[in-house]
Amino acid sequence: MLPAMKKRSARRETARERFARNLKSRRLELELSQEQLAEGCGLHRTYVGSVERAERNVSIDNMERLALAVGLSLVDLLSSER
Amino acid sequence: MLPAMKKRSARRETARERFARNLKSRRLELELSQEQLAEGCGLHRTYVGSVERAERNVSIDNMERLALAVGLSLVDLLSSER
Repeated sequence: MLPAMKKRSARRETARERFARNLKSRRLELELSQEQLAEGCGLHRTYVGSVERAERNVSIDNMERLALAVGLSLVDLLSSER
Repeated sequence: MLPAMKKRSARRETARERFARNLKSRRLELELSQEQLAEGCGLHRTYVGSVERAERNVSIDNMERLALAVGLSLVDLLSSER
């Protein structure tokens, strides 16, 4: 295994990455577009996209809005189980 | 019961308030001052105070730093069970 790969796989997923991954998978599960999700919680489509790419240091208030919009608790969206 | 009290008790606690409450109770459990907690995660004491009072729309990165500093997962700090 290349050292770079080893380092990558050894690194723990951050909360930001976990939230991004869970949000996206839940949105796809609900068959919603980023635009539909964004409209459902009063955020902008490009904002939702950047959150899903873990580019955005999302705030707790917006995390809660997103969780409500996809019908999950914030705890669910931060869980490593999903 | 006064209408104002009724309204207050009926309102659902926000994620921001739950995080604030759990962070403070965990810090006190560990017998840490706000200053000690702040030093432990490279944040400012006044910032930690404002998060604990739910005045601050804390970001996911700082939530994770705070969780690490008190030895809990972010999920624990957002749980309504604590």
